[in-house]
Amino acid sequence: MDLLATFTCKDTSGIVHTMTDAVLKCDGNIIENQQFTDPITGMFCMRTRFTTNASRDDAEQILQRELARFAPELKIREITNRPRALIMVTKESHCLRDLLYLRELGELPVEIPLVISNHDELRGLVESHGIAFEHLPVNAQNKKSQESEIMARIQELNIDVVVLARYMQILSKEFCNEFAGHIINIHHSFLPGFKGARPYHQAYERGVKIIGATAHFVTEDLDEGPIIEQDIAHVTHSATPDDLISIGRDIERRVLAKAVRLYAEDRVFLLGNRTVIFI
Amino acid sequence: MDLLATFTCKDTSGIVHTMTDAVLKCDGNIIENQQFTDPITGMFCMRTRFTTNASRDDAEQILQRELARFAPELKIREITNRPRALIMVTKESHCLRDLLYLRELGELPVEIPLVISNHDELRGLVESHGIAFEHLPVNAQNKKSQESEIMARIQELNIDVVVLARYMQILSKEFCNEFAGHIINIHHSFLPGFKGARPYHQAYERGVKIIGATAHFVTEDLDEGPIIEQDIAHVTHSATPDDLISIGRDIERRVLAKAVRLYAEDRVFLLGNRTVIFI
Amino acid sequence: MDLLATFTCKDTSGIVHTMTDAVLKCDGNIIENQQFTDPITGMFCMRTRFTTNASRDDAEQILQRELARFAPELKIREITNRPRALIMVTKESHCLRDLLYLRELGELPVEIPLVISNHDELRGLVESHGIAFEHLPVNAQNKKSQESEIMARIQELNIDVVVLARYMQILSKEFCNEFAGHIINIHHSFLPGFKGARPYHQAYERGVKIIGATAHFVTEDLDEGPIIEQDIAHVTHSATPDDLISIGRDIERRVLAKAVRLYAEDRVFLLGNRTVIFI
Amino acid sequence: MDLLATFTCKDTSGIVHTMTDAVLKCDGNIIENQQFTDPITGMFCMRTRFTTNASRDDAEQILQRELARFAPELKIREITNRPRALIMVTKESHCLRDLLYLRELGELPVEIPLVISNHDELRGLVESHGIAFEHLPVNAQNKKSQESEIMARIQELNIDVVVLARYMQILSKEFCNEFAGHIINIHHSFLPGFKGARPYHQAYERGVKIIGATAHFVTEDLDEGPIIEQDIAHVTHSATPDDLISIGRDIERRVLAKAVRLYAEDRVFLLGNRTVIFI
Repeated sequence: MDLLATFTCKDTSGIVHTMTDAVLKCDGNIIENQQFTDPITGMFCMRTRFTTNASRDDAEQILQRELARFAPELKIREITNRPRALIMVTKESHCLRDLLYLRELGELPVEIPLVISNHDELRGLVESHGIAFEHLPVNAQNKKSQESEIMARIQELNIDVVVLARYMQILSKEFCNEFAGHIINIHHSFLPGFKGARPYHQAYERGVKIIGATAHFVTEDLDEGPIIEQDIAHVTHSATPDDLISIGRDIERRVLAKAVRLYAEDRVFLLGNRTVIFI
Repeated sequence: MDLLATFTCKDTSGIVHTMTDAVLKCDGNIIENQQFTDPITGMFCMRTRFTTNASRDDAEQILQRELARFAPELKIREITNRPRALIMVTKESHCLRDLLYLRELGELPVEIPLVISNHDELRGLVESHGIAFEHLPVNAQNKKSQESEIMARIQELNIDVVVLARYMQILSKEFCNEFAGHIINIHHSFLPGFKGARPYHQAYERGVKIIGATAHFVTEDLDEGPIIEQDIAHVTHSATPDDLISIGRDIERRVLAKAVRLYAEDRVFLLGNRTVIFI
Repeated sequence: MDLLATFTCKDTSGIVHTMTDAVLKCDGNIIENQQFTDPITGMFCMRTRFTTNASRDDAEQILQRELARFAPELKIREITNRPRALIMVTKESHCLRDLLYLRELGELPVEIPLVISNHDELRGLVESHGIAFEHLPVNAQNKKSQESEIMARIQELNIDVVVLARYMQILSKEFCNEFAGHIINIHHSFLPGFKGARPYHQAYERGVKIIGATAHFVTEDLDEGPIIEQDIAHVTHSATPDDLISIGRDIERRVLAKAVRLYAEDRVFLLGNRTVIFI
Repeated sequence: MDLLATFTCKDTSGIVHTMTDAVLKCDGNIIENQQFTDPITGMFCMRTRFTTNASRDDAEQILQRELARFAPELKIREITNRPRALIMVTKESHCLRDLLYLRELGELPVEIPLVISNHDELRGLVESHGIAFEHLPVNAQNKKSQESEIMARIQELNIDVVVLARYMQILSKEFCNEFAGHIINIHHSFLPGFKGARPYHQAYERGVKIIGATAHFVTEDLDEGPIIEQDIAHVTHSATPDDLISIGRDIERRVLAKAVRLYAEDRVFLLGNRTVIFI
């Protein structure tokens, strides 16, 4: 059995030693092991992959028992038991396509039981990949009930993570808090930043030489939240706003796919307003 | 004679044709030629390098005459007649060192007749390169007179460009306007941006995955202004604020040196709030 | 009418002037204009996009007449008249998917009337995009006749460029020469280079920190030929050979798509063994 | 006391547990901890930084005793006890300058007691930094005795690492083997690779779109050996051979400085022909 254990706890001495001891007590053989102590929060994170003849449940029992005095937030799963992602989109397909494509290639270890959209345009694309598609329109009046529907699907389908793959709606504060640390969004980003509408046009008028994208956990503020992954591309004065949008799409899809993969491999630890990423 | 002509004018038809005709009238042979029409401002920019037996002055007369109907802002110089840069620093040496080093290597085609600092710490470094150093302290009381001194040096030494190589003072509005388009600054930059003190510490607390630097022309707002060059580096959670500062220094010096080189080769055209860079 | 003219000729004085004069004679207004003189071959390249009320044929006649003394290789087309690409694949889909996807997004200005494969696996993918798919198996015995079939399709379908999107067959010397400068291949590439089978495994054993991909025109030697585009990704010791293959796929598809786009926009000039790319 | 312990040994179960136990026996508190098992060689590497009240010698004794059954190659030092580097140069200064500069900034944790050159040109630069310079000319006749001199300095000065900062001589097989794993070289590198003289001119004629540099441990073959760090820059057709050389210099100095820093922080593990780098 190939198991992946991750946990965070308050830092103190002896944690690594206790964890490796617990793995030995499972007759486990460590394959990967990473740990980090965050100086700001004083929190300790550890990610340990090990093979063992013990069952997941027995291993969990042993680890919980041995680590108990550190009061860890522990998660342990079989590597083959992939996280389940709900993807939410509006009309733009570029991020969705990359996620579907990488999953088919075997490079994105997630299950995707459902794609939800507030529009119907992408149904054909989704269903052609053998994935269920649900059209849940949203407007100012039905926002609350639409989110209740989404939340119901999350429960029914045992969703681990919600991926906003260019979902052009602001989620309610309640929704964000309910699923904090489990909603990933992709957002364009610029140096300097631009407020308001049509950011690529603003970037063009400002003559930026770099455009970027940021994948982050969603908090109450849609376009902020702890950063998971960022990347950029260099651009020149000759790029039109349409060129910038096209280049931006390419960065967005790569950055979001990278962030989802990191999450799916349990490499992302959320500590307050920042992330620790074991790569 | 190896001449470099640059000009901007309002876009209309026939400019390239007229310019190449004018070069032929100088018995010139075009070595490099680039042009761009900016859709926002409707301005046309052209950079033409050509060899000729005509003198610079004769060539200028011909170009001015032939191009007159376009009312261009024309500049023409011998390639070997390098722009003259005044470098201003405070205490940090990393950007200054790179500029001095690249000039010695022959990779930065500028003359540096003087370095001015509001502190005395970098005198030894500057003088060891055979360059004059002047210590002009500044405080709230003497700011106006200190800037007058700087402006006097700019006049005496025929300075073309002022390079703020980590000069930690805000120049007055009058100074910025007087020399608009001829002051280059280097500024750290982040996604998202941070206001206030200790930006690298803020970036650390926010868990950014990228840090960057922006070289720009100085306008009244020290850290804004038309962008000349930008670059970034990827960082991880394990980088401490000191690590970020160190990485930031490395980006800053590369970006500033690149911007100064582009300027020195007359590759930078300023159109309103954006630049056109011929590379 | 939005026309794009490209030409190469031996460098001499007066070419730009003559060309811009010819455009004026078409009542044309230049939108983009780039030129370069290659010091090695002494060849001059120019790419001019202009709008005009003249027809393409009339414009061609004027340009041919005016430029005649330079004996240029001239090509002129309407921007909307997109190049026609034949894509060839074997079993791997990553490069093909990106090309189809970018074309649908409107970011790859090519027509794709046909995909040919020596295997049948990718038929479903291709046909689901509404594109014809032809399975032309190849072995040592039928290689000549298979290539004749391909060549026949190229003629019938007025193909401008053949894109080898992971086509794992070596084309005959005759085929390569017949279509020289119009076959684009994508090839992994490493520092240092590796000969022989399983290059990613060799790269892994050598502990490379960078892997790359190169898009190039095909010459008699499949994996050499004039380079159009290259890019790399950084990797670490912890990447397994499978990880390297996955990262390599991602670079390959980006680099090939970029190269096809540059070609499709007539930005690529072939001068002996090197390319000039107007970006 | 801030200690840094690194070791490699054959992989088996229980190593991390034993190591963390040993650190606890030193009353140590782990600050950083990284480990990796190399699937090719079956070797295990670990790097542990910890604070303790024990002396370095006591800590070493405890670690050696506790880890004895793994027969580790163990190294333990105080963080403040920096590695000692001998830098070797010929006439080019760019890599040397960066090393001196970064050491002065406090970003390169090495001592540099001596710079040796086979020419005298860089004496002034080195001595102006307060570092001893020795001119040891070399030719076919005296090569053996020159290398004996160098080896004598390495002994006298307790040198840990020899940095070839553009030392344009091939070291003898005996020298390389004597100091295997402790000589770092910087080498330009290209896609594809070029044999023979004037590689930048070859790269130019081939029209490469990327040039790079590789820092590696020196083996008998000067320009091969286990890779420590690599990086690249994008170039275009308009870059002349001189431009490529200039860009290459910039990459070389950054890559070599990075490699020396990684080595100086004991982040580089040499396993057969590949390196493991803990970053």
